[in-house]
Amino acid sequence: MKRILIIGAGRSTSAMIDYLEKQARKYSWNIVVADKNTEHLTHKVNEIISLSNFDIKDDLCREDEIKRADLVISMLPVRFHKFAAITCLKFSKSLITASYEPAEWKEFEAELDEKGLLFLNEMGVDPGLDHMSAMKVINRLKAEGHELLGFETFTGGLVAPESDDNPWKYKISWNPRNVVLAGQDGPAKFRQEGKYKYIPYNRLFRRTEIIEIEGFGKFEGYANRDSLKYIEKYNLGNIPTIYRGTLRRPGFCRAWNVFVQLGATDDTFQIEGIGDMTWRDFINSFLYYHKSDSVETKLYHYMHIDQDSDIIEKLEWLGIFDNIPVGLKKATPAQVLEHLVKQKWQLKPDDKDMTVMWHKFIYSDVITNKIKQLTSSMAVIGENAEHTAMAKTVGLPLGIAAKLVLTGKIKLTGLQIPTIPEIYDPVLDELKNYGIHFNEKIQEWKNQDYHYH
Amino acid sequence: MKRILIIGAGRSTSAMIDYLEKQARKYSWNIVVADKNTEHLTHKVNEIISLSNFDIKDDLCREDEIKRADLVISMLPVRFHKFAAITCLKFSKSLITASYEPAEWKEFEAELDEKGLLFLNEMGVDPGLDHMSAMKVINRLKAEGHELLGFETFTGGLVAPESDDNPWKYKISWNPRNVVLAGQDGPAKFRQEGKYKYIPYNRLFRRTEIIEIEGFGKFEGYANRDSLKYIEKYNLGNIPTIYRGTLRRPGFCRAWNVFVQLGATDDTFQIEGIGDMTWRDFINSFLYYHKSDSVETKLYHYMHIDQDSDIIEKLEWLGIFDNIPVGLKKATPAQVLEHLVKQKWQLKPDDKDMTVMWHKFIYSDVITNKIKQLTSSMAVIGENAEHTAMAKTVGLPLGIAAKLVLTGKIKLTGLQIPTIPEIYDPVLDELKNYGIHFNEKIQEWKNQDYHYH
Repeated sequence: MKRILIIGAGRSTSAMIDYLEKQARKYSWNIVVADKNTEHLTHKVNEIISLSNFDIKDDLCREDEIKRADLVISMLPVRFHKFAAITCLKFSKSLITASYEPAEWKEFEAELDEKGLLFLNEMGVDPGLDHMSAMKVINRLKAEGHELLGFETFTGGLVAPESDDNPWKYKISWNPRNVVLAGQDGPAKFRQEGKYKYIPYNRLFRRTEIIEIEGFGKFEGYANRDSLKYIEKYNLGNIPTIYRGTLRRPGFCRAWNVFVQLGATDDTFQIEGIGDMTWRDFINSFLYYHKSDSVETKLYHYMHIDQDSDIIEKLEWLGIFDNIPVGLKKATPAQVLEHLVKQKWQLKPDDKDMTVMWHKFIYSDVITNKIKQLTSSMAVIGENAEHTAMAKTVGLPLGIAAKLVLTGKIKLTGLQIPTIPEIYDPVLDELKNYGIHFNEKIQEWKNQDYHYH
Repeated sequence: MKRILIIGAGRSTSAMIDYLEKQARKYSWNIVVADKNTEHLTHKVNEIISLSNFDIKDDLCREDEIKRADLVISMLPVRFHKFAAITCLKFSKSLITASYEPAEWKEFEAELDEKGLLFLNEMGVDPGLDHMSAMKVINRLKAEGHELLGFETFTGGLVAPESDDNPWKYKISWNPRNVVLAGQDGPAKFRQEGKYKYIPYNRLFRRTEIIEIEGFGKFEGYANRDSLKYIEKYNLGNIPTIYRGTLRRPGFCRAWNVFVQLGATDDTFQIEGIGDMTWRDFINSFLYYHKSDSVETKLYHYMHIDQDSDIIEKLEWLGIFDNIPVGLKKATPAQVLEHLVKQKWQLKPDDKDMTVMWHKFIYSDVITNKIKQLTSSMAVIGENAEHTAMAKTVGLPLGIAAKLVLTGKIKLTGLQIPTIPEIYDPVLDELKNYGIHFNEKIQEWKNQDYHYH
């Protein structure tokens, strides 16, 4: 009886555990869900699933669990993965995560190859499903002999249209801290028409692109981190244009940019006297002093916001002008904002979230010599605040990969991300059974300018 | 015969060495100028002054020189001071620097007190002369019983009016790297009318204040780092307004802000392919792609710069649109900009620089009960590109302090900055002999609004 160890049972593990439980019944496996605090776990314990009170930093406990496992899945925050990795190496166990592959894991490669183990990272939705769905098209276009001229890809975790009841058209289905800090890890880097382009944080939310996904309406995309490193990861050689972005509903970025411009997303210093401040005081601390003008007047003047701008409704709805205590004793501006949006953008129990993904490939057709545009899009709607599209699109690829490894369908070893057919073909195929599929459309390319990149 | 060891003989040491040479003749002292590379030193070697080929990181060499000294002056970059400090402690020597007191030096305090040594930091112009001139007024106003309501202080190193021949009205008299990185070490923090205020980097150069110094015309000031920590340093208690700033000529900040907004002052990443790029390519990497629009058109459109704006002349004069190679093989955007402004804003041999300082104190007069404004200003003009006002205003306070310590006029021990009368009274008095003096003016306070803070 094979044993799967799942370390870290956060919000996004429900769909994966449900999936693996079904597979475990079929293949007679056991699943151990290990977490620092197993009391909050809503998962049933049964003949398949057991819980383990687990501390990743406790060597004895970690070694004991990993030693007995046949496969380890780490769902912990990325900084803890290395503990799992080192122990997996020690006891010759394969490891799967949904996190970005840490650069320093390159040093594990020789030992992984030697021991015939697989460390598979970036196996969730973004990173994960984005790699798989893009690489499947890229490899197909290449195999057909076409020349790739451009690749743009966007992912977003949002609220489904039927639960969209706030002016931001956004609710949080993932880590709220990341929502506030998005874009702060260096300038966005990409290539367009052969030119390297950089967007600093203070311009990120103003250089957006509008995208339409059939049946789901319009979105806006802002640039996401370093797109350049995907040239090598995706083997795209001298591709003139590569751009990765994040999706929101139109109007979100322009309003969020107000916080960026104010300095209210800063996570590097503590606000003086936050314990005695209201939301209104907090916003005022980023505005110039004026004897008589209101906080609203100062903000709209400072940010050049017109009286009839849709930004005003969004800001007022968030409550930033309210004379209600923030309710934190010590906090950076980013922590104050996180505290606010966590409340305001929370999914209500029956709310449905939505994960969307959209790729655009520009290529020169080998037969007609014409420039074509292939778009590939996916949209998944969640069931409710517990069974989210986010949990499903993160967890199912992970679960399927785990099954494929344990059943020997994936024989790959070494340090991998799912950019290769041996992984993405069977995973994408099986995902279709769960409503996760991509719609493709090929058109002649209208040689439009990308004014906002 | 007492021996003064001066470690680091950079640009700003000439005035100090000249001063100390005169004092050394009078008091029969010796001066050792120690630098990693003594070949570039233009100073004469004579019966007073000797040179020492010196590496601060070489323990033997450092200990040998410091052991034989009676007083050590470190003019090295701030990160090297700790080497000098540790060895000074070991051999019981006092130390003077012009740098900000490192926070971790607090741990030296007990040993300094015990051994009766003085470590005196912030003894240049800013920090240094700013502390001394401000504290002299603050302590006087307090002694007279007035209540301080506000303190604003600005310093700038610029070009003198007679050598001002470029549209930026600026030349570099100090470290060009610091010119490019100014404002990037966290948001500016200050207090105004009892409210804490924060200005993020991306707004810093737009929230300026215009200041006039009689006889020298108008300047603009932008907020400088953390003003809040001076509340304690200057013993200002609950003072409602405190603000420290940096001076430029009006129009500088608005134009420099273009680079800030573009992301061209970023020092965190390497520009791809900079070795093959011209200045024009460099600027274009921060602009959106467009098939046909020129770099100029894109920049002015992106930054909302009008056709007749004075910003255009400034940018064109810097040569950022020129198709001339940058001439660096590997560089961050900030290093590229530094490379540019170092050339363009260089003092020509006969150019004169200018150091200006301006304080404003608002207080409630204890006798009349009226609100008054006291301004105190200083302007020093350099002689030429070698004998600069910057070198004089940095070096003379240091030199005078060194003399006062060696002659026993300053008996103070411990970890100090020059905020106390025992230091600032004799130093400010002697500085007057060198044309460094402050003009005071007291007026009724016009209760004007500070719109741009």
